[in-house]
Amino acid sequence: MHTKSPIEIAFDFISPYAYIGWKRIHAVAESHGRAVTPVPVLFAAMLNFHGTKGPAEVPARRVYVFKDATRKAHRAGLGPLIPPPSHPYNPLLALRVATIPMPAVPQRALIDALFHAAWGGGGGVETPAAVSAVARSVGLDGEALIAQANTPEIKERLRKNTESAIARGAFGVPSFFVDGELFFGVDSLELIADFLEGRDPVTNGLLSRWAELPASAQREAR
Amino acid sequence: MHTKSPIEIAFDFISPYAYIGWKRIHAVAESHGRAVTPVPVLFAAMLNFHGTKGPAEVPARRVYVFKDATRKAHRAGLGPLIPPPSHPYNPLLALRVATIPMPAVPQRALIDALFHAAWGGGGGVETPAAVSAVARSVGLDGEALIAQANTPEIKERLRKNTESAIARGAFGVPSFFVDGELFFGVDSLELIADFLEGRDPVTNGLLSRWAELPASAQREAR
Repeated sequence: MHTKSPIEIAFDFISPYAYIGWKRIHAVAESHGRAVTPVPVLFAAMLNFHGTKGPAEVPARRVYVFKDATRKAHRAGLGPLIPPPSHPYNPLLALRVATIPMPAVPQRALIDALFHAAWGGGGGVETPAAVSAVARSVGLDGEALIAQANTPEIKERLRKNTESAIARGAFGVPSFFVDGELFFGVDSLELIADFLEGRDPVTNGLLSRWAELPASAQREAR
Repeated sequence: MHTKSPIEIAFDFISPYAYIGWKRIHAVAESHGRAVTPVPVLFAAMLNFHGTKGPAEVPARRVYVFKDATRKAHRAGLGPLIPPPSHPYNPLLALRVATIPMPAVPQRALIDALFHAAWGGGGGVETPAAVSAVARSVGLDGEALIAQANTPEIKERLRKNTESAIARGAFGVPSFFVDGELFFGVDSLELIADFLEGRDPVTNGLLSRWAELPASAQREAR
């Protein structure tokens, strides 16, 4: 029984960091009496909204991202990080399937299996055949889920998830919402634990000072 | 005596993460028998080169950066993160002063004091008066250092530092170079320790697979 608000995780299967975040957040939540609410979002829409690039879209950063995620997956006790058949790829179908309302237990098993197919050595999650096979592997009806994923209701639900995450300040994945507070990235898991334990060092005074700080120089627009 | 290669840290005073990285890297280096070589770089030039934005340049991310850095500074045992008088500001003079060749002990004290003035509640490091006061506070001749900082030799040295860091793969600050391997950000300090202890999980096979992966979808250019 969880009487406190769940921790929401906004994720996209495209991101190895979202995979690590998904695998790690459950233990943090459980040890603090919280449930986890999965919030599939389209990372590309966040980048478009903010006019930013994903880390793997910056050529000099792309190889580093894989090394860094491999190291962080290893420290999290996960198996080796194994790339999907292609990257970037279109994650929309997998995100929509993950967006279909269902009870928490099969939903977690389904998202686990989709992430494993994306980053744990499976066959990826881009095609209907791949997504359907993943659903079947956890005892769900892949064909039926894909049909439902392609309905206007589910497409709209994923769009709304993404817009709501952006409206609440998210600029990347994984993002976590904890009692209304945004945390970003796998490196924030320890910070979430501190926050849940009442040990957050952020003070309103310094935060206001930062928010109201004048700029005395700007990088030239390019 | 250090018989192994030093760990290089590429940093810019503009970044609170560079401050945290600078404060943390010495303990990691010392516990592994390594010296630390400071490499001042102009972060803005890295962003211009890669066509990217700094985290504090994305409006939705700017407040989050301060919260995140405050939390990470706290976990690192540093005092509260206190913003400088303005941000962004022009860090060139402070970077050039930090670039002046000098023995390791006064150089570390000078960089420590400049970072403290930038993020530890001092008067900032933008103006000649501020930089000179910081230098005096650690027993150095501020006026002489500023005169030297403005010579073509030192300006060129800072440019070369920045170009060299970019050429070695850096896309942000702090960046660490450890036996030729790039590590980025304060969240890589644990990964550096693993690497130094021969426990790096990155394998060439998976890395090559990632590097050679085809794309099956691309985000539309905006």
